[in-house]
Formats: sequence, C-alpha cells, structure tokens
Amino acid sequence: MGNSSQPVPRPRAAVNPPQTDLSGGNTLDCLTAQYRPGWSLPGGFYSDANVYRADLEQVWRRGWLFAAHSCEIPKPGDFITLSVDADSLIVIRGEDGLVRGLHNVCRHRGSLICAEPAGHAHRLVCPYHQWTYGCDGTLMACRGMQPELDKSQFGLRSFPTREVEGLIYFNLAEDPIDFSPAETVLADIARPQGLTRAKVAKAVDYLVHANWKLVWENNRECFHCNVNHPQYIKANFDHYNADDTTPRVKAEIADAVRRGKEKWAAAGLAPTRDQSGMTLFPDAEHNIWFSSNRTPLVDGYFSESMDGKQVAPLMGDYKEADVGTLRIRTLPNFWNHSSCDHAVSTRLLPAGPEFTAVRVLWLVHQDAVEGRDYQLEKIMPFWQLTSEQDWQICERQQRGVNSSAYLPGPYSSFKEYNVDSFVQWYMKLLARH
Amino acid sequence: MGNSSQPVPRPRAAVNPPQTDLSGGNTLDCLTAQYRPGWSLPGGFYSDANVYRADLEQVWRRGWLFAAHSCEIPKPGDFITLSVDADSLIVIRGEDGLVRGLHNVCRHRGSLICAEPAGHAHRLVCPYHQWTYGCDGTLMACRGMQPELDKSQFGLRSFPTREVEGLIYFNLAEDPIDFSPAETVLADIARPQGLTRAKVAKAVDYLVHANWKLVWENNRECFHCNVNHPQYIKANFDHYNADDTTPRVKAEIADAVRRGKEKWAAAGLAPTRDQSGMTLFPDAEHNIWFSSNRTPLVDGYFSESMDGKQVAPLMGDYKEADVGTLRIRTLPNFWNHSSCDHAVSTRLLPAGPEFTAVRVLWLVHQDAVEGRDYQLEKIMPFWQLTSEQDWQICERQQRGVNSSAYLPGPYSSFKEYNVDSFVQWYMKLLARH
Amino acid sequence: MGNSSQPVPRPRAAVNPPQTDLSGGNTLDCLTAQYRPGWSLPGGFYSDANVYRADLEQVWRRGWLFAAHSCEIPKPGDFITLSVDADSLIVIRGEDGLVRGLHNVCRHRGSLICAEPAGHAHRLVCPYHQWTYGCDGTLMACRGMQPELDKSQFGLRSFPTREVEGLIYFNLAEDPIDFSPAETVLADIARPQGLTRAKVAKAVDYLVHANWKLVWENNRECFHCNVNHPQYIKANFDHYNADDTTPRVKAEIADAVRRGKEKWAAAGLAPTRDQSGMTLFPDAEHNIWFSSNRTPLVDGYFSESMDGKQVAPLMGDYKEADVGTLRIRTLPNFWNHSSCDHAVSTRLLPAGPEFTAVRVLWLVHQDAVEGRDYQLEKIMPFWQLTSEQDWQICERQQRGVNSSAYLPGPYSSFKEYNVDSFVQWYMKLLARH
Repeated sequence: MGNSSQPVPRPRAAVNPPQTDLSGGNTLDCLTAQYRPGWSLPGGFYSDANVYRADLEQVWRRGWLFAAHSCEIPKPGDFITLSVDADSLIVIRGEDGLVRGLHNVCRHRGSLICAEPAGHAHRLVCPYHQWTYGCDGTLMACRGMQPELDKSQFGLRSFPTREVEGLIYFNLAEDPIDFSPAETVLADIARPQGLTRAKVAKAVDYLVHANWKLVWENNRECFHCNVNHPQYIKANFDHYNADDTTPRVKAEIADAVRRGKEKWAAAGLAPTRDQSGMTLFPDAEHNIWFSSNRTPLVDGYFSESMDGKQVAPLMGDYKEADVGTLRIRTLPNFWNHSSCDHAVSTRLLPAGPEFTAVRVLWLVHQDAVEGRDYQLEKIMPFWQLTSEQDWQICERQQRGVNSSAYLPGPYSSFKEYNVDSFVQWYMKLLARH
Repeated sequence: MGNSSQPVPRPRAAVNPPQTDLSGGNTLDCLTAQYRPGWSLPGGFYSDANVYRADLEQVWRRGWLFAAHSCEIPKPGDFITLSVDADSLIVIRGEDGLVRGLHNVCRHRGSLICAEPAGHAHRLVCPYHQWTYGCDGTLMACRGMQPELDKSQFGLRSFPTREVEGLIYFNLAEDPIDFSPAETVLADIARPQGLTRAKVAKAVDYLVHANWKLVWENNRECFHCNVNHPQYIKANFDHYNADDTTPRVKAEIADAVRRGKEKWAAAGLAPTRDQSGMTLFPDAEHNIWFSSNRTPLVDGYFSESMDGKQVAPLMGDYKEADVGTLRIRTLPNFWNHSSCDHAVSTRLLPAGPEFTAVRVLWLVHQDAVEGRDYQLEKIMPFWQLTSEQDWQICERQQRGVNSSAYLPGPYSSFKEYNVDSFVQWYMKLLARH
Repeated sequence: MGNSSQPVPRPRAAVNPPQTDLSGGNTLDCLTAQYRPGWSLPGGFYSDANVYRADLEQVWRRGWLFAAHSCEIPKPGDFITLSVDADSLIVIRGEDGLVRGLHNVCRHRGSLICAEPAGHAHRLVCPYHQWTYGCDGTLMACRGMQPELDKSQFGLRSFPTREVEGLIYFNLAEDPIDFSPAETVLADIARPQGLTRAKVAKAVDYLVHANWKLVWENNRECFHCNVNHPQYIKANFDHYNADDTTPRVKAEIADAVRRGKEKWAAAGLAPTRDQSGMTLFPDAEHNIWFSSNRTPLVDGYFSESMDGKQVAPLMGDYKEADVGTLRIRTLPNFWNHSSCDHAVSTRLLPAGPEFTAVRVLWLVHQDAVEGRDYQLEKIMPFWQLTSEQDWQICERQQRGVNSSAYLPGPYSSFKEYNVDSFVQWYMKLLARH
C-alpha cells in the first residue's frame, strides 16, 4: 500500500509510450531491452517461461524468503513444508530449539519425505525405504544399504534459516546475502508486537492466477484503494497522496502522526517517522529489500477490523489499543500488518509463470481462546476482503498484459513511485543473469 | 456444408499417399513442404505451437472477423467483449451510433477494463486506477497521474470495424485488406432477412477440443451429413452430389430451384444462382473469403426446424415462409443459416492449438416474444443437434490427427472440393509467413 | 518385487554422490552424461519433454507391449482400443480368429475410427465419412471417392501382434525385435494357469502422476514392502534379502521351496528355480525384457488374498490350491501375479512425461459366476491395496525428483540390484538415440 503526504520522488515526464520491438524474439534480452524506468514492464515479463526461470534463479533462489511464524513450529520436531516452484522444503525446529531448513528430497531415490503441510517428528523418515534423518538432516539410519556407504555424505541438503522475533526466513543460495541488516530493523520494530508469543488463529491459501510481480506491484501502491478497498481506506491514510490531499486531511494526518509519536514514545514503542505511511520501498539502488514502520490509524480506529474496534486481547507488550499499525515487508515474499490485537501476514510463493501461491495468516495472542476472547468473523474480514479484492485485480491485470496489444504504461510519480522502485529493484536482480 | 448437382471441380488422381519426412524437425517449413494439394494437411498443422502462432499472425490478425450482431449492441454504450487467443477485445457502439473496436487493455498498467462478456457503459473505466476512456477509446481522465502526461498519447488501442446489415466485423491488422467487396455481397443478400431488426433469442458457447481448421474443414462439405446429421438432411439438398444423385432427385432439386427463383424474384428477394447449394467457396486463387446465397429447402420445409414448420414470426421483409435458406459464410470465423423465421449464426475464435471457442446464436424478429411467438425448444434443436454432432466429429478427428501414425489422405473430388479449397486458401495465407 | 535369499549381485561401493552439472542445458546428452550405474537417474529423466520423446521412440515404439488378455476379445470382431501416448490403437480379432493391430486413424482425413475402449464390429467404419475397413485393416469401401482411387493403398496402418497362452502383445516398430524367445518362456510357464480359459472379473484404471520409469523402479524391488505393503508381505517372501534374513526365516523359505518343487513337479507344473523369489530381471547386458517363475507363498497362504484362503474356483490345469504364485513380467509395460484361483495383470501405458496410465485386471476361471463362485470384495483388495500403495509412493517420488535439489542416490546392492538392472537396461535402449 502507498502512503500519504509523501514528497514526490523522481518526477518523470511521460511523453510517448515506448515502442515494442519483438522482431528479435521473445527472449529475456529482448524483453529487457524494451524496459524503460518509470514505465510498467513489457508483457513477456509476466508470462514467458524463460523469464520465470530467471526469476527463480535470480530472485527466489537468492533472496531471503519468509517461511513461517515461529509459533507455527514452537516445539522441537515441529515442522512445516512449503514449495518454491518445484522445490519442496522442510522448515523444522531441532532438538536444540534452532530452526533448520532441509530439502524435502530423500538422498536415496528422491522421494518426498514429508507429504503433509505441517507436522511433528522426532526423526524424518522417508516413507519409501525408511532412510532416517535427524532434525538437522543428518542421515542416521539407512537399513538395507551396503555397509560401506558413508552416511556422512548423504544428509538431507540443507539451507540457512534465520529466526527473528517470531519470523522465520530461509535462503536457497549457495552463498546467501547478509541477513543481519534486515534482522536489526525487523527485531527492533517487531518486538513489542509479541509475535513470539502469538498463535495462528487462521490460515487461508490462495492460488492466484497472476505472476508474482503483479502481486507485488499491486501491493506497492494505494492508488487503487479508493475504489477497490472500501474497508481498508476507512482505517488507513495510505490512499492520500501529495497531489490530492486537502489541507483538512493533511492537518488530520499531521495530528494523528503527532499524537502517535508522543503516545508510542511514552509507551516505550519504537519511534516512527515524522510522516505517516511507509518509507520509500524498496530501494533499488542500495538493494534494500526489507522495511518496517509504525503508522497511525484513522481517528477512532484501534484495529484493522471492519469497525475499527478491538477484536482480540492485546498482543505483545501493548498496554493499550492505540498503537496504530505496525507494518513489515520483505522482498520477494512477505508483508505483515499488525494491529494492537491481531497480526496478519501474507506469504507469496511462485507456482508457475502465471501463478502465485499465497497464504494469509491471522495471528492473535497465544493465550487468546477462540469464541471466548476473539471470533474469526471479527478478526478476518478486513484483510480477507482486502486480499481477495487484490487477487481479483491481479488476475484481471494478468489477462490484460497477456494481450499482444498490451503496451507498457507510465507510472504516476505521485502514487506509484514504489511500484517503479519495485520494478527497478527487480530489473537490477535480473541483470545479474 | 456441401451442395448438390455440383460439377466436379479439379478432379485429381489419388494414387499413393504422400510420404511424411519429419527428420528435419516439426518446423513450419518442414510441415509446409509435406503438404500436397488435394490431400489433407500433415498432422502438425493441427497441434504444433508454431503453426498456431503463424495462424494467429497470418489468418486471425489479418482477416476480417465476425464479432457480433448489431442487435447485440443496439444502443450507444452497449458493448460486448471477445477474445482472439489471448487478445481481449471490446466492440462498443459510440454516442454517434458507430461501432468501434478497442483493445480491452488499459494503457496505464495493462489491466483488463471490461471483465464481463457484455454490458453498457457511458465511459470505459479501468477498475484498477480508474483511467477513464470514451466509447471511442480516447483517454478522458487519469486522475492521480502527473499533469504533463499527454493524454492524447494514451487512448485505448483501436481497430477498425464494419457494420453491414446487422453484422459487425473487425480487423486486427495494421493495414487491413479491403472490406468493400464483402460488404456489397453481404448487404444485398442479407437485407431481406432483417437482421438489423432482430434480437438474440439464445446463445450457446462451446469450447471445442479441436483446431479451428478442423472445424472449417467439417463445415466445407456435406459428405458426412448422411450418417451424422439425420435432421439436417431432411431439410436440405447439400448431401446430394454429382456422383450419386439419382435422376429423380436431380429433377426434384431442379424443380425446387426453379420454383424458388420464380417466387423469390417476384417477392423482391435477391436472385439466387441456377444451382441449389452454395457456390464454390472459398476461392484460394482470388482470396474470396466471403460468400452468400439463397437456396431452396426440401419440399414441405419452410424453416430449418425439426419438422420443417415455421417456428417464429416472419423476419425482415419476408411476406411468406417459402424463402428457402439464406446462407452466409466469411472466413475465418463465421457462418449463418437463415430461415424465414429465424437465423442461426456461428462464430469461431481460436483458443489454443487444439481448442476453438464457438458461439452459436439464434435470432428472431425483434418484436417476437418468447413463449407467445416462439419457443426455444422449437427453434433450437435443428442447429443445436447439427452443431454438437459436428463438434464431436471434430474432436474425434483431432485425436486421430494427433497420432504419429496419421498420414494425410485424399479428398473426394466429388464431395470435398471445398475442403480442398479451404486448405489451399489457408496455405496461401500462411505462405506470407 | 524383489526376492529372498538372493546372492548379492554386483556389489558396488557408494562413496560420493555424483555431481550434477546442468550448465550445458537440460538436454538428453547432458542428462545421459550425468548418469552413473548403481545410482538413480538424474531428475530430468523423469520430467523432461525431450527425454519423454526419446522414451517413446526408443522404448515404447520398439518393444513388445502387452495389449490385453485373449479373453477380452474372444470372438472374431471383438476389439479393444488403447493409447501409447497420442497414438490410438485398435487390437481386434479377425474372422480367421487371428488378432491384429491397427492404427485407429482413418486413412481419409485422420478421424479416430473407434472412440470406445472396447467393442465388437464386423467392419470398422469411420464415423466421419464411412470409409469401411475389414478387421485386417483392408479398405473395403469408400463411397463418394473418385473411382481411380486405389483402395489397396489406403488400408489402415497395421502393426504386428502375438498371442501366447492368453496374452496379447504388439509392436509398433518398423522392424520389430524377435518375439520368439519370450514366447517360449511365457508359454511354458503360463499354460497351466489357463489364461486362455479365463475371464476378466474386474478392471480398474488409474492415471498415476509419475513417469513410467518410476513405476517400474518401484516394481523392481521389495525393499519398500515391509512398511508400505502390510498385506503383501504376509503372503510372500519377497521382502527377505540376503543381508537381513534370519536362519529361521531362511529355513522356512528353503522348506517352502523344497515342498513346492516336489509338489509342483508331481502335479505336472513347470519346474521352478531352486530359490524362491524371481530371477534377476531385467538383464541389461543381454536385453532380456521378459521373465517368469513360480514361487511358493508363505505357509498357510493358498492365494494372494487378504487371509490367504482360496477366493475363487481353481483356474487352468490346477488340481489343488497349493501352487504358489506364478509371476510374469515383460518390459516395458506388463506384470502379472497369478494364484491358483485368480490372476492379476497390470498394464502400463505412457501418458506424458509425468503421467502413466495403469490398468489393473483381475481374472478368474471363465465359468466362475460372480456372487456364486467368487466375490469381488474377496479377490480384489490384496492387489488393489498393494497397487494403490505403490502409486502413492511413485507420485511422492515424482514430486521429489522434480526438485532442483534432487541428486541421484545410491542403490542398495542387497535389495535394489533389479532397479539398477532396469535403469541400465533403459539407458542401453536410450543410447541408440
């Protein structure tokens, strides 16, 4: 979502649309040559199989990906599985309490080891021939194999994970980029939300018929909110921008920001910025793929719920409801909006050139009891409606950009600077190809 | 459908089947080299992705395509949408009463603008960020964009349309071929049918699992009618051919033609030819992609209905029921059979190498009232049965030509000359590739 | 399934996993270069479209394939249809009682001739234009074609078949390999089972989401039986291997083998080998793609039924129930387990890189009457459960080998020698590419 009162970044004159020249074939190079900053991507970026493979290699198998919340696998032996395209992965908490990432592929004959989306296991036993691995992937037993087999060579292939304030990330690269800058930022702001003391109240899975980049482009602006998200805009200021915000609204926003700053500082919460809404994100130039901030809700809203009322017990360190919303987003696959009483996380995973597997999770305090302390029909609609409205938008856009008549169009310098930043960030990653 | 009493065109000796040589790969050139006039096409023409792309470029994006009947969008602002492969299109009637074709792709970020199959709109507003276009595609508003954006550069991409006697055509080519020869032919013969004063009684959509060329090849002969279309052959003479028509049948046909000529001339209807059935069509040599004719029905049949009885009020200028059938066909995507009381149109659209989206529409006089003046169960079965019999045939043929053992076979010079003509017409268009 | 008391063939040290290098692209040559005997195949062999095409050419269109049981088409004119990938085939019994194979593709315009899975026909009449073929494929009539058409040139394309003791095989190659060695082996051992005097009690079709080679690799070992096939291992000795069989079990097996040998010799049945279980199969070096043997069941088991009791009348020449199990397997698409009272056949057909169409057939004596002499719920569960357990295993393995993290793993020299043999046999066939 965009933000309010934002200075206009990089204004750029939109004169004539770029010309598409497909004579050289629909290759990645040809498509890249057609790209022009400030304009939406050529159509092939959203459907071409070669582009998709490049996305997997340059983005998905190199970035830090959100896997799950810590509270989904609280105890040693708890695990979840997930898929990045055709790669099935296990994220499991070991006996030592540390989270580890393991490829869900037996080193014997390649069978999937865990077929369920989640579970608990002391040992990971392949259902085919019972090769047995520890929670760290070590091959512990492979009865029936020749004695000279060196078990140390046949552990499950693993990948690094990081756990920060209730958020679990992983990385599939041989030589992952540094996670620590993100860790610092996320830890400080997420700590008061108490995601480490939360539980998942509900998870809903979607298979969105749209390329993952369309889902992010949709996320990176609130230009579409006025008409598409009637619920969302009642609670938030995101849809106000530098160009069309009246003095009255500007004063209202400034007041909300001022009140929030004072109150939150007093409550020991991490300070927010002077402006409402989020920072510019992502930063293509410095490859800043993570960000978070706290921002006020509209006066009278204490939670991102349908009527703004609190809908579950306070989470984390919060002493009162008026904490605005905490927002976290990490590319390429995660964002979260947290209110005083519940948190909503969205995880994206690529499932083909034109498909994105999306999971939306609603979290509440770990001690909250459904029916007594909260009701799903109160905590879910705000983000369920907003999410499903967005998936419909993305699917309509996918159909449009698939047309041979589609031409890249200009971004609004007032409202789509973050979409432009996202696309530039993406194109930079892709250029390593 | 074929015709009766037709002189045998271009008899051609069928000696040995052509040899297929796929050693050079399944390329378009390789497939083209295997083609031999008078024989069915090599199998790859019906399933290969490259052939399909060439079909889109050389046939579908260059020819005049039937979109809809005028009566589907009678008022300014009325529109329908349709898809030629992945290209979504809007055909809309403007404030000035003229029909226009617009690509259904927003010039901002490419979203589909109209997601419904039909509707009414004063302005075309993109649901994503409300870029607003006039019915002629002009960008009228794009609130939130930078002021220096030159709106005149961002109208919806358009394509030419033609409206002739209740039929709407469009063309996706940069430099469309001349429509006027078709217009003259269609206007003269269609006028008495009164399609401009008709309404759609019913439309049925099919996704036929067969390449679009198989659907046309099926349409271009009535060799298959005797066994496959028991209803159709009761009403029509098409299944009689030069080789197997008895003197008695020949006399019956001649009599019907003579009676028709006299009567229709007196009734002010466009004259028909001396022979029943349709003209040779298409004409590959002169690229004649349109044709129409009026031909008698079997004695006792006044409508293409199950029992030959009139099933709806007379249409157009007709004063009595005995007007035979009016037939129109235009390549690559339209045919129509019109009786005195109802008209049936078939529209084809390509939906993949092995899929054709077919819409069959039943039209009646605009003042006819369902239940009172006509019943769907009376006007529909004749062509619904005939159509569905043909789709089954085409799907069976698709499965057969997909076999690695399929070899092109010889066309009957008595009965499949028009199939041969269709294939030659197609191969000529493709040769421009 | 594997065997018991088997000498360990070709022990091979498993040291380090092979390195995959996909830099040269996912071509067949690149994949082949990565293969190492004794290790499972690189992942592309189970999903790559080029590998699948090579499999069709080198394996499926060159080997002898099981089509059906003789009792499925007992009378002249009886036929079944089946598909090898996109090739639809008819296997029909002619007026002379001989079985013939015909491509199910009309020589006129390529329509499928028979759309049903089975039927009876005096003539094969194409439903499109009624070209009419004899049961031997001869074109007998093509009314409406030009008289000079030489019908002798337009018979249905045919392929050779063989019928041996109730089993029908066919071959799609131009110049098929010799069937006679297989014929001798199959005839001798199958004769007492009386498959020629059997009937199909039930057939169940599966579309298994796994490459056909995974299905065979699963079939070629019983390493997985202990945990996955609780029913199967109660009746059979297959899951015992040289490395982990106790002296007590060894004695039990030796005793069963000895008793079987004596008894079966006295009963006039074909002699079995000195060891229980099956021979090494296949033999890659000598391209032995067929084998059969008789082996004892566990003491107290008289049939591969849930409780080991006889569940239908004795078949064939059997005079008493204690005949162990007869086993037949022929690559690439057939295996059979026959008990004294019923026989179960499994037929594989390739249906895409990641799909295998499997049919399992249960046969009983032709005079047995359902309800009176046998009940489906008694004869089916043993192999229905075992089969479905295997399909689930194969589908899980397919998902795992699709991962970019999959690496070939080492085969157990004690238990997977036949899997290794299968893979080597396959790689030899593929090398002809």
